[in-house]
Amino acid sequence: MGSVAPPGRGPKVRAAVLAAAVAELGERGYAAFTVEEVAQRAGVHKTTVYRRWPDRDALIADALADSVAAELPIPDTGSVEADLRALARSLVAWINSPSGRAVLAVMVPAAGSPAPPDVMRHAFRDRIRRALPIVPRAIARGEIPVGTDPAELIKTLVAPIYFRVLIPRERVTEDTADAAAAVALTAARAGLFS
Amino acid sequence: MGSVAPPGRGPKVRAAVLAAAVAELGERGYAAFTVEEVAQRAGVHKTTVYRRWPDRDALIADALADSVAAELPIPDTGSVEADLRALARSLVAWINSPSGRAVLAVMVPAAGSPAPPDVMRHAFRDRIRRALPIVPRAIARGEIPVGTDPAELIKTLVAPIYFRVLIPRERVTEDTADAAAAVALTAARAGLFS
Repeated sequence: MGSVAPPGRGPKVRAAVLAAAVAELGERGYAAFTVEEVAQRAGVHKTTVYRRWPDRDALIADALADSVAAELPIPDTGSVEADLRALARSLVAWINSPSGRAVLAVMVPAAGSPAPPDVMRHAFRDRIRRALPIVPRAIARGEIPVGTDPAELIKTLVAPIYFRVLIPRERVTEDTADAAAAVALTAARAGLFS
Repeated sequence: MGSVAPPGRGPKVRAAVLAAAVAELGERGYAAFTVEEVAQRAGVHKTTVYRRWPDRDALIADALADSVAAELPIPDTGSVEADLRALARSLVAWINSPSGRAVLAVMVPAAGSPAPPDVMRHAFRDRIRRALPIVPRAIARGEIPVGTDPAELIKTLVAPIYFRVLIPRERVTEDTADAAAAVALTAARAGLFS
């Protein structure tokens, strides 16, 4: 099952299980996700999984955090414009990847299906939180006003990208990313996040 | 069942069935939606429903279009700032209503559940389309640059509102609406949608 590396000990098992968990989330969604299927896909016994993760939500949280951290590095180019553009472009690349689709499917379930647990929102908040240092660095360089709220700026940057994927279901591209960066930076320079 | 008006003939039956359909969508989601349950909730026989709507997707499309049209009037105040603010505030009010929650739940299903049919996206596109005249009116008044793309401006206006509801799951308020209007207008004045 799956194409993950054959399980060995320690880090290899962990990586194989987390990759299998992300793949299962993408194919089945949060409601139908089971530890048994993840173990089978990773080629390990389910007790091996339970030794490392107490329950399925702990496994999902780790898998999402791992996916987000690996695929969304935070840029530090020396220019806020380049940083915001790079951040938006890496979000677009991630959304278009199997892992990004898996995370989005979990974060936005249908009515009547189980609401995602807080661990899901933590993975999202963690991504926002990791991007925040872009803003004080830009303030220190005099590129945007003192007092700019980092979270407001980063949320404004990512909002049009998520919106186009989730509501009109448009394909997002580097052009989408660059346009979002231009809007967020223009609003920041105008003092709208102070 | 439900609190809709007792069914009479003609427009009353139509209104009762559409209200029941929106309520069912909100409670059960798209996948579990059935004409039988809608008929029961509206207090009519299901053949009465099938006489007016050939299938469940036609009923859902009508119910969503009706809900969107009734609850999202398009402002024409004479000022683009007031128009955008009013549009954003009415979107927030609609999102916080049972009907708005129902539509959003249908538009964004879980992985593995049926994708919404095109009629769903039509309801969304219709809402964007109905708001577009705000933009040429603003151009004609000289408030924003000639050549501003109406759809880009309106999507930028609504994106942060949908984003906060769907991803970080924040409550949206009139402050959210006003901030979104300020960002969209600032970007428009800077020529970012031309």
